[in-house]
Amino acid sequence: MSNTIARQVHLLNRPNGMPKVDDFTIVEAQLPDLKDGEVLIQNHYMSVDPYMRGRMRTDGVYAEPYKLNAPMWGGALGEIVESKDPNLKVGDKVINGGAWQDKHIAAGSTVSKFTPFDESQMSLYLGTLGMPGLTAYVGLFKFGEPKAGETVFVSAASGAVGANVCQIAKLKGCRVIGSAGSDEKAQWLLDECGVDAAINYKTCGDLTEALAAVAPDGIDVYFENVGGDHLQAALAVMNPFGRIAACGMIASYNDAEPVPGPNNLMLIVGKKVRINGFIVSDHGDMRDEFLAEMIPWIQEGKIKSRETMVTGLENATGAFLGLFSGQNFGKMVVKI
Amino acid sequence: MSNTIARQVHLLNRPNGMPKVDDFTIVEAQLPDLKDGEVLIQNHYMSVDPYMRGRMRTDGVYAEPYKLNAPMWGGALGEIVESKDPNLKVGDKVINGGAWQDKHIAAGSTVSKFTPFDESQMSLYLGTLGMPGLTAYVGLFKFGEPKAGETVFVSAASGAVGANVCQIAKLKGCRVIGSAGSDEKAQWLLDECGVDAAINYKTCGDLTEALAAVAPDGIDVYFENVGGDHLQAALAVMNPFGRIAACGMIASYNDAEPVPGPNNLMLIVGKKVRINGFIVSDHGDMRDEFLAEMIPWIQEGKIKSRETMVTGLENATGAFLGLFSGQNFGKMVVKI
Repeated sequence: MSNTIARQVHLLNRPNGMPKVDDFTIVEAQLPDLKDGEVLIQNHYMSVDPYMRGRMRTDGVYAEPYKLNAPMWGGALGEIVESKDPNLKVGDKVINGGAWQDKHIAAGSTVSKFTPFDESQMSLYLGTLGMPGLTAYVGLFKFGEPKAGETVFVSAASGAVGANVCQIAKLKGCRVIGSAGSDEKAQWLLDECGVDAAINYKTCGDLTEALAAVAPDGIDVYFENVGGDHLQAALAVMNPFGRIAACGMIASYNDAEPVPGPNNLMLIVGKKVRINGFIVSDHGDMRDEFLAEMIPWIQEGKIKSRETMVTGLENATGAFLGLFSGQNFGKMVVKI
Repeated sequence: MSNTIARQVHLLNRPNGMPKVDDFTIVEAQLPDLKDGEVLIQNHYMSVDPYMRGRMRTDGVYAEPYKLNAPMWGGALGEIVESKDPNLKVGDKVINGGAWQDKHIAAGSTVSKFTPFDESQMSLYLGTLGMPGLTAYVGLFKFGEPKAGETVFVSAASGAVGANVCQIAKLKGCRVIGSAGSDEKAQWLLDECGVDAAINYKTCGDLTEALAAVAPDGIDVYFENVGGDHLQAALAVMNPFGRIAACGMIASYNDAEPVPGPNNLMLIVGKKVRINGFIVSDHGDMRDEFLAEMIPWIQEGKIKSRETMVTGLENATGAFLGLFSGQNFGKMVVKI
């Protein structure tokens, strides 16, 4: 055994409904010595994302579930502090899958060396330039297929994925409507992301009526992050041949008992709607194209990012739980 | 005015919930003289189809709603008895939109002359060779996109559309599971349509469990005619990257109050499902290809058709209402 001690967040129980702080704990673990081909990574930033809730179930269909009493995983940014992989040297910055741990050992072949376009904005590689940004890009272009002049409705629009969808759609000449859970977020969407209309879904009353009011010509694309009444409203206001890019349905992630869906699904037929569920990990082939478009947009100030930064691995659980009550504004990142 | 008297079925009220016989009446109307370009058609067969329920609403999104106190319309087969269109002569057989009427006047440009491949099976042009058959063909190939060896689940499988989907999918090398509302229909699916498994959804208990039991490798394509618990079961048993061709959701057509949808829509994301709502009238470009494949299949006995034939325009309303309680077995046709 080495003398390296890692701090790890473990899952203790599979939550039923909304996870609680007690479902997690921090463990100090002594790491083994490196084997050939392995690297020791010190993480600087980790991501907390809604999809992680799905990995806490055993009936999850996304991916292998987290093990109990073992470190969870997810996107992280760190640097190599020890290497037995000839392709990686101490000091190399790497995107890696070792979230929820300050230090961890990985096979060198499973991490990606990267050079941030701007050191001071390194954490963007977990957000706008990382998985959430790519999710926005893939979902909008591959499945939403908006044409200039069409109307795009985005739910969870101030979130890590949604804010990118809104801004990319604007850059492509669409009219964009975003929904968010506070007046402050709605105002940010208007002022900084340049959306044409923003809805505070918590105070707007009937969401279908609120959406119809700001979409007098209907909507052509719905970027689905929420489910429930957002899906119902989108179907009600959708134009014929509309497209729904179904990225997530966060409203249902913590339901202990399944909740019925919208009562207007018949509109899928009548309006000839196309719905595509998708998971970004199937679309890594679009990553190079995505970065080639996004980095200049960021440098030119055309895409703005907002992060909620939480400091300390001991606060990662709270940051994760906060995603489900909208405590994040933009991408939630933990600085380790 | 001519001396031609036509019998017409009129809609008297917009039904709330299940239509009643009293919502319709038969009217005798004196037809005007033909104008240039018009033809007088004597109809021999008319179609009753579930989609007609949608045209009785004013909030229908399918098509222009039926007018009150005026003849309804829909697919019919008849012959020209008087013509002021140089392209059509007395005795020509025509597919026309004048259902719910024994005689009617149409612009010659709106009807299609046809020569049945077999006079004794003329009514097939309302079913297997008509709109329902084309619906099956378009939905399966354009939106279901089944590959040989994949499993296709078909709801309302003994109906006018479903029975064609089942048989075409078998011809293309798929494993096919059909659901229907009686043991007799389920047996017919097994014996005549050659499906691999049939479910009587009225007696099977939990439909998801019943479907899972006959689809141990999951389903890859779901041909949606029903909605509700059929959609729920299909999503539960669907394989990753499954496709749903959404043709109709008859379970909901007569709901006076909207009924909530399935509680597992999140699986659309997790399983990366594609759903395409469609209406056959947008896909007339596939009609020639469809007939070129279907007529030989029928002649070779590879596609079997079953009709429920009702005689007399006065029984058309009852035939239509019977669609919603499964009184049809295969295509419901009215002989006028």
